Amino acid sequence: MAAEAAVSNAHELGRLIAEQGWVLITGGRDAGVMKAANAGAKQAKESLTIGILPDASTEVSPDVDVTIVTGIGEARNNIIVLSADAVIACGVGDPGTTSEVALAIKNRKPVILLGVEDAARQFISDIGGDDVHIAVSTMQAIQLVSNCLKVNREGE
Amino acid sequence: MAAEAAVSNAHELGRLIAEQGWVLITGGRDAGVMKAANAGAKQAKESLTIGILPDASTEVSPDVDVTIVTGIGEARNNIIVLSADAVIACGVGDPGTTSEVALAIKNRKPVILLGVEDAARQFISDIGGDDVHIAVSTMQAIQLVSNCLKVNREGE
Amino acid sequence: MAAEAAVSNAHELGRLIAEQGWVLITGGRDAGVMKAANAGAKQAKESLTIGILPDASTEVSPDVDVTIVTGIGEARNNIIVLSADAVIACGVGDPGTTSEVALAIKNRKPVILLGVEDAARQFISDIGGDDVHIAVSTMQAIQLVSNCLKVNREGE
Amino acid sequence: MAAEAAVSNAHELGRLIAEQGWVLITGGRDAGVMKAANAGAKQAKESLTIGILPDASTEVSPDVDVTIVTGIGEARNNIIVLSADAVIACGVGDPGTTSEVALAIKNRKPVILLGVEDAARQFISDIGGDDVHIAVSTMQAIQLVSNCLKVNREGE
Repeated sequence: MAAEAAVSNAHELGRLIAEQGWVLITGGRDAGVMKAANAGAKQAKESLTIGILPDASTEVSPDVDVTIVTGIGEARNNIIVLSADAVIACGVGDPGTTSEVALAIKNRKPVILLGVEDAARQFISDIGGDDVHIAVSTMQAIQLVSNCLKVNREGE
Repeated sequence: MAAEAAVSNAHELGRLIAEQGWVLITGGRDAGVMKAANAGAKQAKESLTIGILPDASTEVSPDVDVTIVTGIGEARNNIIVLSADAVIACGVGDPGTTSEVALAIKNRKPVILLGVEDAARQFISDIGGDDVHIAVSTMQAIQLVSNCLKVNREGE
Repeated sequence: MAAEAAVSNAHELGRLIAEQGWVLITGGRDAGVMKAANAGAKQAKESLTIGILPDASTEVSPDVDVTIVTGIGEARNNIIVLSADAVIACGVGDPGTTSEVALAIKNRKPVILLGVEDAARQFISDIGGDDVHIAVSTMQAIQLVSNCLKVNREGE
Repeated sequence: MAAEAAVSNAHELGRLIAEQGWVLITGGRDAGVMKAANAGAKQAKESLTIGILPDASTEVSPDVDVTIVTGIGEARNNIIVLSADAVIACGVGDPGTTSEVALAIKNRKPVILLGVEDAARQFISDIGGDDVHIAVSTMQAIQLVSNCLKVNREGE
């Protein structure tokens, strides 16, 4: 997926997540899909956005409400996925997102892939099995998360 | 690649790495490619094997000389790649190895893929560019690491 | 200080912090001063409480709004202090709080000690210098934090 | 204790630790007690020194054999203590060492204090109880570690 489409999807997802009353967790940086998702959340009537930063020198998206300064660099991706009920990846074209998706699978968190190209989709589905879901729209991504949360609650 | 071939390659790589006088760093667990690589290293005349463990309850391969108990779970994969001069992946069929490879690329460490299937190879090469190298044998993997180390030293 | 007094101070501090419009960050566990501070915050009209947990199996205080699951065990104390603008310690009688205070000083965060015994106060003041402040009441602790935040803002 | 005495003790401890056939683990930096302990170890006939570094930009003591680059900053103190069988503190006059000692106690590792002033000794003994031992010489520190290791082995 073109980076542009990923950013536009992230913006829409941010808004939809906030409208569901869910907390938005991102890597918090003032760039790309993170920035877009946080900006999208702030278009909803109410929202809570958490940015889990690599370290104290990170430039933070202005739409992050609470910053968690981990000081553990890229390893903070593991904290993002451990803290999330489900992980939505808007494109997996870069190593940061790939590590997040792989760590989410390792920790048995549901992963929703949106706008992911063929090779990536095949590869990630191979390693993730039933925990990986494919969405063709932002609305479907939200629906898939919603289903995962229901299953989680029933399993408790 | 079949898991069996990955384990056999890992065993051979362990020995070759030790014979080069290099330190072998793995995730230290008493299973799969980690166990095999440490066992291989111990077949060389001299070797030093370091196991970077997720936590204190990890079962450690008996061929690990020094254990580093990180207490940070899967995030320890980031410590493995940061501590390494180069990363060799024997197969990328599971999320743990995938996260390691992705974190290695993110940290600009050279990555050598050995015995990796088509979809994975295409995907990882796409996100890693020039930092990703493909080996068709254990000897070639060692040669590729050797080249990367030379380039590093000249760059210093 | 008796553990009882520490818990009672933590409860009051939680409420005062929330009334200032500040975000309350704690270690999130359902015990001792953490539990008390979160419960106190929920007595204010509005509050936001963040619990930075050691791992996924931690029992969480019911008054924590957002849990960050770090998966890094006791090392999460470093994330607590890095994420805070100032650190208030209600008693320093246990190693967990002591490590937090020491890490706060190491990271040059202002530390306010409330109800801390003589030996601890002398020792911590010795290693922390000007970054360590002594409060004799919860109100004074809030006032000291407020001063630190002002200095921070002017320094920006 | 004067910083000078701490450095001199650290140098001697490094040598004694290596002579016991133990692995020396330090924070790896090219300064103070860390540097001295590593230099001391290299005066023994054989030695293995591991440096557990905060991040990739750390200046490393030249006498460190293997560097573990954690990328987690000061939180790496928790990895040092988790990886050690026992912790010797040469003076506790700075927040870094204090956090290490507090984390060691939290993780129930034996702590040996050498050349620690009255206020610090009282405070640390209060929070650590039976896990804290006081040494008046480097030889006694080694003897105390040796005792702790025996108890550990018998407890297994």
